[in-house]
Amino acid sequence: MKTDIGPVNLALVHHPVLNKKGETIGSAVTNLDLHDIARAARTYGVHRYYVTTPFEDQQQLVREIVGHWQEGHGATYNPARKEALGIVRLAAALEIAIEELTAVYGRRPLLIGTSAQPQAKTLSFNELRSKAAAREPMLIIFGTAHGLAPEIMTIMDATLPPIQEKAGYNHLSVRSAASIILDRLLGD
Amino acid sequence: MKTDIGPVNLALVHHPVLNKKGETIGSAVTNLDLHDIARAARTYGVHRYYVTTPFEDQQQLVREIVGHWQEGHGATYNPARKEALGIVRLAAALEIAIEELTAVYGRRPLLIGTSAQPQAKTLSFNELRSKAAAREPMLIIFGTAHGLAPEIMTIMDATLPPIQEKAGYNHLSVRSAASIILDRLLGD
Repeated sequence: MKTDIGPVNLALVHHPVLNKKGETIGSAVTNLDLHDIARAARTYGVHRYYVTTPFEDQQQLVREIVGHWQEGHGATYNPARKEALGIVRLAAALEIAIEELTAVYGRRPLLIGTSAQPQAKTLSFNELRSKAAAREPMLIIFGTAHGLAPEIMTIMDATLPPIQEKAGYNHLSVRSAASIILDRLLGD
Repeated sequence: MKTDIGPVNLALVHHPVLNKKGETIGSAVTNLDLHDIARAARTYGVHRYYVTTPFEDQQQLVREIVGHWQEGHGATYNPARKEALGIVRLAAALEIAIEELTAVYGRRPLLIGTSAQPQAKTLSFNELRSKAAAREPMLIIFGTAHGLAPEIMTIMDATLPPIQEKAGYNHLSVRSAASIILDRLLGD
């Protein structure tokens, strides 16, 4: 049985993001961000999972990781991992991911920003769940390091509220946050 | 603001678990299992997060990781991480974690097994959410590698159904699974 491919796409942005001091930086790609989020994305029927970085050496790292599990020893050793990493797409910038998805759907997907802090243009999880159920194409965008930089937040059509906004502690990993958001939007 | 400490505890078991072939093994502790699950656990007000391994070298690794962020350079560099890792407890076996929690609560916590495959004694997420809301002490138990071995599954009082049971693909990382289960049981 194959999960129905839905209208939901993810992007994990490595530039422009914030560092601990709130400065705009580019972050390094990490192996487990690719694996964990691809596995969760595949479980919930995500269409494409974009990993965006402008740095050539980091792009090469993404190609090597995905290649190992798509064509290398990993593909025969672990077919389930091959299937998960099969939805990963590399892009030099978020704008390129948006262009590619616009070509696929014939319209620009809804751009949904995520953050551990409240942002402008908030849409509730239930509202976005309804849009996903109505098969509205969307791209949910996650920042690495200390989150998406303000200059990229301004292009979002809407933003999701922080997970567990009322908790006194909100320092989830991006891997946990992406998993929980997928479950809230697409879970049984 | 400090999240209210609830009656929910987690355990991440490194022995006895299954390997790819279904044989009982002991797995290696990984840094990110400690960090990601501790951060999610702290966000959702989990009381204690037990990491269980019978291997002395692996126990030492847990002590070093937690120590770095509790007392080392990490504690001043990242106080939020210190707070998350402050709920981690090391135990040589799951039975010891159960004994310690029984002493804390004055009664044995409900033992809840998790698995990517359906198991006996299933309790729905909603039923367990009600028990958590009624502040019934519980220990939710996760297996590393290919999951908890059958000999440990038999001691569970109940088990949770697989996440996204109807999806054709169910290969979440234990980090994603723990995050999603916490959100389903304790989320806003």
